[in-house]
Formats: sequence, C-alpha cells, structure tokens
Amino acid sequence: MAAGTRIVLAARPVGEPKDSDFRIETMPEPAPGPGQMLLRTLWLSLDPYMRGRMSDAPSYAKPVEIGQTMEGRTVSEVVQSNLDGYKPGDVVFGANGWQTHALSDGKGVRKLDPSLAPLSTALGVLGMPGMTAYTGLLEIGQPKEGETVVVSAASGAVGSVVGQIAKIKGARAVGIAGGPDKCRYVTDELGFDACVDHRGGDLPGRLKAACPNGIDVYFENVGGAVFEAVFPLLNNFARVPVCGQIATYNAVEMPDGALRTSALTRAILTKRLTLRGFIVTDFAARHGDFLRDVSAWLREGRVKYREDTVDGIENAPQALIGLLRGKNFGKLIVRVAT
Amino acid sequence: MAAGTRIVLAARPVGEPKDSDFRIETMPEPAPGPGQMLLRTLWLSLDPYMRGRMSDAPSYAKPVEIGQTMEGRTVSEVVQSNLDGYKPGDVVFGANGWQTHALSDGKGVRKLDPSLAPLSTALGVLGMPGMTAYTGLLEIGQPKEGETVVVSAASGAVGSVVGQIAKIKGARAVGIAGGPDKCRYVTDELGFDACVDHRGGDLPGRLKAACPNGIDVYFENVGGAVFEAVFPLLNNFARVPVCGQIATYNAVEMPDGALRTSALTRAILTKRLTLRGFIVTDFAARHGDFLRDVSAWLREGRVKYREDTVDGIENAPQALIGLLRGKNFGKLIVRVAT
Repeated sequence: MAAGTRIVLAARPVGEPKDSDFRIETMPEPAPGPGQMLLRTLWLSLDPYMRGRMSDAPSYAKPVEIGQTMEGRTVSEVVQSNLDGYKPGDVVFGANGWQTHALSDGKGVRKLDPSLAPLSTALGVLGMPGMTAYTGLLEIGQPKEGETVVVSAASGAVGSVVGQIAKIKGARAVGIAGGPDKCRYVTDELGFDACVDHRGGDLPGRLKAACPNGIDVYFENVGGAVFEAVFPLLNNFARVPVCGQIATYNAVEMPDGALRTSALTRAILTKRLTLRGFIVTDFAARHGDFLRDVSAWLREGRVKYREDTVDGIENAPQALIGLLRGKNFGKLIVRVAT
Repeated sequence: MAAGTRIVLAARPVGEPKDSDFRIETMPEPAPGPGQMLLRTLWLSLDPYMRGRMSDAPSYAKPVEIGQTMEGRTVSEVVQSNLDGYKPGDVVFGANGWQTHALSDGKGVRKLDPSLAPLSTALGVLGMPGMTAYTGLLEIGQPKEGETVVVSAASGAVGSVVGQIAKIKGARAVGIAGGPDKCRYVTDELGFDACVDHRGGDLPGRLKAACPNGIDVYFENVGGAVFEAVFPLLNNFARVPVCGQIATYNAVEMPDGALRTSALTRAILTKRLTLRGFIVTDFAARHGDFLRDVSAWLREGRVKYREDTVDGIENAPQALIGLLRGKNFGKLIVRVAT
C-alpha cells in the first residue's frame, strides 16, 4: 500500500505563520469501508481564510485543532469506490484538506465534468472565490450602471471576478492591487477602468484621482490602510460588502489606524452607508445562478482568470505564507498530483 | 401690527452650544402676499439633529447660516390666507423654524385634524421621530419574534417608539437610558423587558445580564461608550440601524474610544453584521404605512408617548442645550403659543 502525505497544524501561529506551525506527515493510504470511496487529491486550493482557521480566535467557523489535517477545498479523482454513483476515474470537488488521499462518504462532494471547464476552476472562478465575488457584489454591493465599484486585492481570485462583473453590469471598475505588474494585468487583461498600486505611495491621492465621481461600492478584501484610503471617498448610500480583512489576518493585536471608530460610525450615519459582512455560504441559494452566469461569461470571454500554481503538497505551507504577504499573482492552487 | 420673535444662529458652536451661539430677535409680523398664508407657531419641535445644522461639517443637510433663523418642525395655526384650501383657524404641520410667525406658500405643509390626536403628536410619535423609529426598525432592523432588540436613548422620542414596536413584533426589548427614573418609565410605562442605566456603572456587565441571548438588533442613537458596550454582544447576522450619534454631536474632535476601527470591521466580517445609516426621508414612501400603523397602535394603547414641554420660544436655546446633555424626559417640544 502506497504511503500518502498530509500536512497538519503543528502550532497556532503568533503573527505570521512559519514553517514550524505546520508538520508534514506520511500516512498509510486509507482503505474505503462500505459506503465509502478513496479519493486521490489532484488540486488543493489555498485561500486567505485559512489563516483564520489556524487561530482559535472567535470566528464564523471552528478552528483546525492542533495535530489535525489543515482544511481546504480540493479536486480529487476517485480511486476506489464502495459508494453508489461514483466509480474510479470520476473527478469530484470536495473539502478534503491538505492531504494526498482521503476517504469520503459522498457528503459535501460534487461530481465535476472535465469537458465543461478546466478542473482547477472548481477551486477558483467557478468555485468558492467566484461565488464569493458574485454574491457579495450582486446581493450587497448592487452596482448600478454608471456607478463606481472599487475592489481591493483586485488581481486575486475574488477581486478579479468582482471587477469584471461590475463592468458587465455597466459600472466603472477600479482595482487596488500590490505592484505595477498586478495593476497592469488588472487594467490590460481584465479590463478594469483603472487600478491603483497600494505600494506606490499616496494611495489616498491616487485613488481619488481614479475615482473622480467618488465610490458607490467598495468590495472590501483587505482592511487596514486600504480601507482608510477608500473611506473618505465613499458617496452617500455607498454599499460596502465586507468579504475579507487580509491586512490584519496576521495581526497579533488589532492595529490602531488613523481612522477613529467614532468617525466611521458618524459617516455611516451622515452618508447613510451600508457595511455588511458576509461569507459565501450565506448566499448558498444563489449557487445555481452563479454557475449559470459565470460559466456563460467565461465561455463568452467576458470573465477571465489567472492561476498561480505551486507544485507539490509539501510546498503548501510556504505558499500560504506567501499568499498572506500578497506574493501570489492570481488564484493560488497546489498541484498535488496529475 | 404685532411684533414677533425669532431665534437666529449667532455663531457656530465649538463643543457644547451656549447662549451666545443664539440670538433672540424681534421681527414685524409678516404680511402674506398672493398665494401665501400667515402662520402663527403653536408648537416647535426640538431634536438632536439640530446640533448638526448649527455646524458646517459635511452632513446630509445644509447647515443653518449665521444670522439665519434656526430650522425646526412646527405645528401652526393659519392666521390669514391668500392660498386656496387654507383658511384662518386651520392647523398645519410644517418646518417654519424657531419663530413665532411665518409666511408659507403651502410647500411642505400638511393640514392636521385636531380631532384625531393631540396636535403636538405631529412633532413626536406621529411625526418625524415616530417615523424614524418605525422605518429604521422595520426596514433595517427587521426584528423577528424572539429576537433581542436593544435601543439607546430609550425614553426619548425615537427610542421609546422603537422598543414598543419591537414588543409588538414579538421581540424582547431592552432599553438603555440615563438615570433610574427614565429606566423605570421605560420598563413600567412603556413595557420594555429591561432597561439599563448607562450612568449606573459597569454598563457592559449589566447590559450583558439584560441580554442573555445576545443582541440581534441594535438601534443606534448615541454612539460612544454605549456603542462600545453593545458591540461585543451583537449576535451573528445582527442588524444595526445607525440613526444618531448624540454622544458625539458636541465633540470638537472625533473621540478615541477603546474600540479599534479594525476590530469593528473584523467583527462586521466574522459575525456578518449589517451597519446601515439612514435618515427618515430615505423611507418617505413608507409614510402612509407609518401613519396607519402607529395611529392604530396609539388608539389601542399599544404605543404610549411622553412629552417634555418647555414654555416660550425664548427658552428654546437652553432646552436644546439640555437635550444634548440628556436632560429632557420624553419628546422635547416648545409651546410657542396657545
């Protein structure tokens, strides 16, 4: 029986995760019992929310326990099956975590059709990040024609889809991204109207220049200094879907920026802002709409995506550490096997 | 021709308004031209938003100019009329400001039926404050049966109606008010389930005890330390209609509380909170529903109200200064004439 590999949480990170917070373990390839199937991981998704799962601070989901396999969404191939409806060679989407093999009873698993789209898109543009962009923008942001939509982490898995859907809905799309290469990609490849490099100095001034009519929707992925630059530009009745706060995920203490809480709540009142947090599962009922619309936009070339691929599950920890520093360029995925 | 009285803004207050920020002027009783009527003010409403109008900080409405009559909603009697549909003796609601007499061309004016409800209620429970409570709670707060609704300034014109409607909708209503007399009124007269005195020490602890199941709706009237006490008790998916920030209206600088902006936005994300600012005119389309429902609840004794009456327009400045300190007990109105 071949040996598999899994990566477990070795310690709760303090600040930025480091190699020693993870542990690579070998494991025997598990044998499926009745009603089970054995899955071989092809692709593993790495996403910013994983930093939250490594911590035991209160959040919307339970943390990964010390010694437990790291959680994560996966695309896998069925190796053996004692489960009706699944046969060897089938490819499925699931959440099998950071491991090369897993048993499944079929719960939370969905069969993928390799002829429809590249399999890895089930982890990106046609998966959780795409659905996050679609529901957060349309359900909370509700962009109208001619409005200005700003999205942070604009070259990333979520942000890239937000801006492209904003364009499809007739809005002006302005991205915020880290570095000139990402900004060029956002405007030239994805078709945003503008993109501001948050590392390029005077973010408030350059963002203002990129948004001459103010900001009607701010899709919030990062928090921190980027939020503070956006904040004074919000128009009356602006909507702020709060999707992520990646700038603070590694923070040991909540950072103390220049913006006072009292100034924020005052502006919420006087500008009649809506700030609303969400996670993708809150809008599970929209999954059919999402797949229909975004699949069509992909086929029509109206939505594009970019993947940043890392080879080998043993490289997942360093890749996640890099993701939290903004090192990735596009949807970060790990090729676990081919 | 009798002389009238008006109160104008003499200076923009720095911090708490003082007597010298107002000036009492006599004025000739104006004579109505064609298409105009002369109104005699009976009741003047005093409301916290007026502090904002005295300042030229950006807000949702233009400030009162120096030397201009202070703005305010009024109940008036028609003295002379050159306007079709109005005759001497008619009583109208309008926004004639802090003056004993005014001319009107009928714009923004609505006739009142003295047989339906006491005339002063057009400034309170059946007026802007009641409508603010009704729309903010039902449109944004959306309380469900069994949920916990907390409202600050609970004995005031808005807060008292918020809690009573929450009860009608089957929610648990918890007030926050200043002093034992107001708290007793809120529970014993208005029928809230509990009321916490924010002057009584350990507000966070006592609020938590009053909300054993956390807080699902927080109707925000005050901001500051009260908001910070409410904040950690908000449940997942809690809704926060942001209606007022009276604790900061006199602030020269935005105060720096214990709550970091980054902690607030993080909680918006992890708890999927909705914070939404509004002013009553945003929901103007609901005015008919409001009048129908709250009038019925008043007749049925399910909504009660309390007025705090000041005699004489010359006492309006001191009354507004007191309102911003929480001195009033119930809807603050000025009896200008009888």
